[in-house]
Amino acid sequence: MDHQKISILIEALPYIKKFRGKTFVIKYGGSIMKNIDAKKAFIEDVVLLKLVGINIVIVHGGGPHISNWLNKLDIQTEFIKGLRVTDEKIMEIVEMVLSGNVNKSITADLCKHGIHAVGISGRDNNLIEATKKYLYEENEKIDIGYVGEVVSVNGKILMDLLERSYLPVISPIGCDKEGNVYNINADYVASSVSAVLKAEKLILLTDVAGLYKDIDDSSSFISSTNAEEIREYMQKGIIKGGMIPKMECCIEAIENGTKNVHLIDGREAHSLLLEIFTNDGMGTMIKGGKYNG
Amino acid sequence: MDHQKISILIEALPYIKKFRGKTFVIKYGGSIMKNIDAKKAFIEDVVLLKLVGINIVIVHGGGPHISNWLNKLDIQTEFIKGLRVTDEKIMEIVEMVLSGNVNKSITADLCKHGIHAVGISGRDNNLIEATKKYLYEENEKIDIGYVGEVVSVNGKILMDLLERSYLPVISPIGCDKEGNVYNINADYVASSVSAVLKAEKLILLTDVAGLYKDIDDSSSFISSTNAEEIREYMQKGIIKGGMIPKMECCIEAIENGTKNVHLIDGREAHSLLLEIFTNDGMGTMIKGGKYNG
Amino acid sequence: MDHQKISILIEALPYIKKFRGKTFVIKYGGSIMKNIDAKKAFIEDVVLLKLVGINIVIVHGGGPHISNWLNKLDIQTEFIKGLRVTDEKIMEIVEMVLSGNVNKSITADLCKHGIHAVGISGRDNNLIEATKKYLYEENEKIDIGYVGEVVSVNGKILMDLLERSYLPVISPIGCDKEGNVYNINADYVASSVSAVLKAEKLILLTDVAGLYKDIDDSSSFISSTNAEEIREYMQKGIIKGGMIPKMECCIEAIENGTKNVHLIDGREAHSLLLEIFTNDGMGTMIKGGKYNG
Amino acid sequence: MDHQKISILIEALPYIKKFRGKTFVIKYGGSIMKNIDAKKAFIEDVVLLKLVGINIVIVHGGGPHISNWLNKLDIQTEFIKGLRVTDEKIMEIVEMVLSGNVNKSITADLCKHGIHAVGISGRDNNLIEATKKYLYEENEKIDIGYVGEVVSVNGKILMDLLERSYLPVISPIGCDKEGNVYNINADYVASSVSAVLKAEKLILLTDVAGLYKDIDDSSSFISSTNAEEIREYMQKGIIKGGMIPKMECCIEAIENGTKNVHLIDGREAHSLLLEIFTNDGMGTMIKGGKYNG
Amino acid sequence: MDHQKISILIEALPYIKKFRGKTFVIKYGGSIMKNIDAKKAFIEDVVLLKLVGINIVIVHGGGPHISNWLNKLDIQTEFIKGLRVTDEKIMEIVEMVLSGNVNKSITADLCKHGIHAVGISGRDNNLIEATKKYLYEENEKIDIGYVGEVVSVNGKILMDLLERSYLPVISPIGCDKEGNVYNINADYVASSVSAVLKAEKLILLTDVAGLYKDIDDSSSFISSTNAEEIREYMQKGIIKGGMIPKMECCIEAIENGTKNVHLIDGREAHSLLLEIFTNDGMGTMIKGGKYNG
Amino acid sequence: MDHQKISILIEALPYIKKFRGKTFVIKYGGSIMKNIDAKKAFIEDVVLLKLVGINIVIVHGGGPHISNWLNKLDIQTEFIKGLRVTDEKIMEIVEMVLSGNVNKSITADLCKHGIHAVGISGRDNNLIEATKKYLYEENEKIDIGYVGEVVSVNGKILMDLLERSYLPVISPIGCDKEGNVYNINADYVASSVSAVLKAEKLILLTDVAGLYKDIDDSSSFISSTNAEEIREYMQKGIIKGGMIPKMECCIEAIENGTKNVHLIDGREAHSLLLEIFTNDGMGTMIKGGKYNG
Repeated sequence: MDHQKISILIEALPYIKKFRGKTFVIKYGGSIMKNIDAKKAFIEDVVLLKLVGINIVIVHGGGPHISNWLNKLDIQTEFIKGLRVTDEKIMEIVEMVLSGNVNKSITADLCKHGIHAVGISGRDNNLIEATKKYLYEENEKIDIGYVGEVVSVNGKILMDLLERSYLPVISPIGCDKEGNVYNINADYVASSVSAVLKAEKLILLTDVAGLYKDIDDSSSFISSTNAEEIREYMQKGIIKGGMIPKMECCIEAIENGTKNVHLIDGREAHSLLLEIFTNDGMGTMIKGGKYNG
Repeated sequence: MDHQKISILIEALPYIKKFRGKTFVIKYGGSIMKNIDAKKAFIEDVVLLKLVGINIVIVHGGGPHISNWLNKLDIQTEFIKGLRVTDEKIMEIVEMVLSGNVNKSITADLCKHGIHAVGISGRDNNLIEATKKYLYEENEKIDIGYVGEVVSVNGKILMDLLERSYLPVISPIGCDKEGNVYNINADYVASSVSAVLKAEKLILLTDVAGLYKDIDDSSSFISSTNAEEIREYMQKGIIKGGMIPKMECCIEAIENGTKNVHLIDGREAHSLLLEIFTNDGMGTMIKGGKYNG
Repeated sequence: MDHQKISILIEALPYIKKFRGKTFVIKYGGSIMKNIDAKKAFIEDVVLLKLVGINIVIVHGGGPHISNWLNKLDIQTEFIKGLRVTDEKIMEIVEMVLSGNVNKSITADLCKHGIHAVGISGRDNNLIEATKKYLYEENEKIDIGYVGEVVSVNGKILMDLLERSYLPVISPIGCDKEGNVYNINADYVASSVSAVLKAEKLILLTDVAGLYKDIDDSSSFISSTNAEEIREYMQKGIIKGGMIPKMECCIEAIENGTKNVHLIDGREAHSLLLEIFTNDGMGTMIKGGKYNG
Repeated sequence: MDHQKISILIEALPYIKKFRGKTFVIKYGGSIMKNIDAKKAFIEDVVLLKLVGINIVIVHGGGPHISNWLNKLDIQTEFIKGLRVTDEKIMEIVEMVLSGNVNKSITADLCKHGIHAVGISGRDNNLIEATKKYLYEENEKIDIGYVGEVVSVNGKILMDLLERSYLPVISPIGCDKEGNVYNINADYVASSVSAVLKAEKLILLTDVAGLYKDIDDSSSFISSTNAEEIREYMQKGIIKGGMIPKMECCIEAIENGTKNVHLIDGREAHSLLLEIFTNDGMGTMIKGGKYNG
Repeated sequence: MDHQKISILIEALPYIKKFRGKTFVIKYGGSIMKNIDAKKAFIEDVVLLKLVGINIVIVHGGGPHISNWLNKLDIQTEFIKGLRVTDEKIMEIVEMVLSGNVNKSITADLCKHGIHAVGISGRDNNLIEATKKYLYEENEKIDIGYVGEVVSVNGKILMDLLERSYLPVISPIGCDKEGNVYNINADYVASSVSAVLKAEKLILLTDVAGLYKDIDDSSSFISSTNAEEIREYMQKGIIKGGMIPKMECCIEAIENGTKNVHLIDGREAHSLLLEIFTNDGMGTMIKGGKYNG
Repeated sequence: MDHQKISILIEALPYIKKFRGKTFVIKYGGSIMKNIDAKKAFIEDVVLLKLVGINIVIVHGGGPHISNWLNKLDIQTEFIKGLRVTDEKIMEIVEMVLSGNVNKSITADLCKHGIHAVGISGRDNNLIEATKKYLYEENEKIDIGYVGEVVSVNGKILMDLLERSYLPVISPIGCDKEGNVYNINADYVASSVSAVLKAEKLILLTDVAGLYKDIDDSSSFISSTNAEEIREYMQKGIIKGGMIPKMECCIEAIENGTKNVHLIDGREAHSLLLEIFTNDGMGTMIKGGKYNG
């Protein structure tokens, strides 16, 4: 490190001052983990954020890992509207892959850096109460099996862990009062967790660069917006397809107490730090001003 | 409940007085979980012990579950001296089954009773540092892959969880400084954990009734012994075969600070409470007097 | 203990889960203490409740003990409307018997079981502020001496003791701002204490089985009621005589924050546990729903 | 208060500085309580010491009160070597008088000043474990009934009360493992309590002015001495009679951790403050230098 | 100390009981410090108040010390309406004299008595945020340089110090967001500090005896009044001149949460204790009843 | 900030991991403060170190500031062996400049960055006990007035402030038991403070680059050494002149518990971060291995 480098450290000061002691909930998508460089950079970014005093909670996905294991087991799966039809046998595999493989691998990567990471699932201490999610098509209710949605988050274990400086890594599994286990979209889990913790930021690290008014025109990139505008974009059809549930999930986070939501491109190395440690940021920021003054 | 039943509750008083505030580490073997009645009774026993104020830590096994999944995946495995030769692929499955399936299922069973159970693996917060275990035969060192032994236990996460009334459920996975992941015999993990926590009791709940001087003579059952006698039994060949490592593991626990060790038959419903809440007990108790006065 | 007995312990689980961490205030009447079996069973019940994590406060009476000592001293006493006319000399004896004999004997019985019982009187740390109680007959105010009623309870010493796991045993003596000492009915003291502590239960352990619609018809036993119904019963003359002040005292407890009140027959061994650890209970339960939902 | 008076307050400063945060155990003898002026002054002194931040524990006697009540009950008592022969019936009266009358009266006097006084007996929380005391005469062991000596003091309840700023007032009653209750000399209880608390001062407030080399020569008053000298005085017969057990009790306190012991004349108003807030003191100080550096 | 003196200590009891655990903010004016006897007596008074358990915060002035140093440096200063016109150079001297000389000298005087005094300035931890104070004359705004008024007080450092039993001594310097340093009237600083701490008393120790209805008639001394009456006195011209800002400062303290304000004559030795430890007091007390009930 | 910059932040990770939670005592010399760029960089460096979780204590000097003010006051001073002869009048100015000007200015600079800096002097809470320092020349003892040396450091106020995340800034003034005030060399104060706090690092930020074997040969720079070698260098005359007391001060720090000592060139911007956040460092490191393993 030389003089020039030091001056870069100094540039980070205002951001560190602003965020230390605050809580960030980060959704870490499964596709990004497959990219070795992006993964290494992500872990480094999280370590740095934790070390400068930010409380971090990670919620991970793991779709590609699940598909991979189902293939090995020669199990065919059907998708309806982007959701995997999940019978009991598949659910068992899903849970093992998410809670036993992906979760422990992220935890261990952080522990190697001396971070006190603890991997838990939504079933631990009844963290995530879930209910079966149905799809609706032409007034028909479609049962897609053990796919769930969040009913409530019992944040006590998270608060206890954060208070003692642990970094919780959450596997997006929930269960209902009857003990049925569900696979839940990690975006929704992260959104609910950030709401319960009244997080400073919910950061969705996925494989898109952010929002565009016109997806074919890179100059139409939206770097900052708010819940109202997003609702408008959805009505006007500017936001569509798979982006719609993701946006609903962002709006929900904000309306329930998260301060700001960020959509950033996890494929690019260090996009997390670039978003947090720069004024312009990298992705799309959805400001929660109206609700979270 | 009537008068007669109440008098039975009252009989339990001396045992509750004796053990509340103390720590029990219980090794819960995989074969017992397969027995639905035994499992239900085990969970109830643990709930009762926790509710009357005993700190409980569970270390689980899961051998039959692992075999089951390897079968489904059509993976053949070889055993040398009772240990499964474990290549990287098998290790991945082992971890998923233990940390993602067995661990979460036990945790959820306890949570249903309102117990604050949290399932973690030996990789979380670097709980278990392990090293590769080699077998030795006729001066030859045999590499059986990712089978490990415990180097050290970092008990901080356990103490933090117990202090806030959580019940930790530990999956017997460890890793070394290079990040290699190992499957470790749950007896050894339980033994090391009980030593680090200076537990009042290490309880090995397995599928044997306890120790016999002569396995064919049920009247030769040993209900109470100590480390010295066990060493003698091993030298004389009274204890032999698969019981030898189990006994070494018990002696180690006692020599490192566990007060007493119990070997009980997990196949029998409520054997756990019967051992703790009766004077004679059910299984074999190895007293740690000499070391833990 | 055998398998059958263990299954009885397991039956207690739901009740333990429901009440641990909650506070019970128990009024323990003097006549029951005279019954050696009932007393032994009562102490065992309290020990069990304390050991499974319930905060217990005992308020004791001692009428028969007082009469006994007054006899020994050849002091005649007069009763008006069931209340002993208490001059200064009698008051001195009353206090010695209650705070120096009965109180210490209960405390010691609990301490023998390893319970951290501490006997205090309403004069300690100004626990009970009292005022002189007058009787009224045909517009005449009758002075019956040092018989008092509760003005207020200063619960700090109770909370400090409970927080450190002590079990306070209270002698029903109070004093006014001038330092006059009064004998107070233990039911009223227990009621006021339960209100200040916002207790889960106020349990009046006396020598009646509970409430009956028709005292001569055992089938008219009331096992569950509420404050409104009791008021109605009093208006209709169903509840009458000595039961009226007892009922007023129950209603007061509920209206000031106690969750439920129980009237149980202390003469029967283990009636306390039978009430708490069964669904139907033994005595009469007055539910505080309306006020303490 | 005027200027002159203020300058007197200022004179107290060095003593307050020296003793705040320290613990004093004060034995308050029964004969002094009978003197209304001395009692009033004693209470005021204790209040002042407590308010300037000194931790106070009072152990009281009550011999004259006991005699008084035995008279009222027409019970004759015999004394052997100055100790009352105490049968079960007498013991019951002794306990009531000490724990129910004297104890509560002192407590209430302090509470009137806003001091958080709590009266307990040696039976509460097993504070004082005692054993039967025998007298020996010409090789004969004489049984004088329920007169006890201290076996051990379980100081936990005292420390818990002091930590929360309460002032414990102890009635000198103890019991043995079988539950037998004993009357114990208050000097010995105070000595044992001061040793367990490693008190700065044990103050014996009795009806003598202190020690004299020659009791008939007031100029031979001993204002400061130590354990060695006292042993010498006893050997030489300078200290004799009833003063011998008192002195043994002082020496014991010092040898077990009390810093200094004071013998002061409780009959003189404010002797307590005069001893503590002046350089020369009023009574005899036994310095614990050798043992408590 | 003798019997008579002890009885004087006892007279102080009611006042100690009333005020221990409460917070007093004392403004200690510069002119008093110059009087060696008054200063010695003031320090003793503060030590006594601190030792009996009152939380003390001192805000000091230092006008005469400043003038003295400006003289030594041959710097002429101009006063407008009683306020020193303060350019940057003068401000630098003002701060050095107040924070480096006066502040440290008071702190050290208290430390000599074993009091844990810590001298800080309004710049430490941004304790006092200030803004430039302008004078107004005939619609003209007069700039008198670095003379400031309090914008807000950040009481955290004071609370942290008081909680650990330190005695904060505050130099009346503040700064604005741009980092400009201001000299602020110590009365105003004391008033703001007492409001933030919700002090029991704000005591202004200055060189006047208190308020008079007629300054020439000593019999017209006002020993107790309230904010409303003072407003009236100001309207009627009874209070005038330099006393007006002092009174505004007292009213402000009361309206913002201080319980009572005292104006006492610091030139008289021990006036502080005389005010607090007597019923009539010495100076003028402004009761905050209406606002601080 | 762009990708390249982020990678520089990541380079800092190992150093942050290594030092967070540790304590650094930094001596900040007066000559460096005069250099505006160096000062700005120093403040930024300290802010960054504090924000990443390092406990910082600053001890400042102020020689040039003192000389400057003495000039303004037209006071001539004499130096003997590099030490200013300090009479009472000069001492008063020295204290005002150090504790009232330099100290508050550093504190305010840090507070502007949101750091909780608190400026205290060695007189606050008796932080530094000092004694008069004499010079010796040819068996003659030379009195140079109020120049002191450290007798002991009472670290309580520092620990209390650090525990609550404050950053103490210490003015190098001490006093003796008689209350005499002394000016003490800031190197010695920093050394004693680092020893009392068992600091990870004592960093002397002065106007030299470090140690050289041959001051005229820049290639002879010593980047790492230890106490033994330094003693050897002094004996051989390699280290000489003003560097000798500085080295004695470093050795003392190490022998009393400081882990490592750094000598760095404060004139160069960011030399502090460059020393800490690089492997080779910038200045001379004196390793304390032998004493502080």
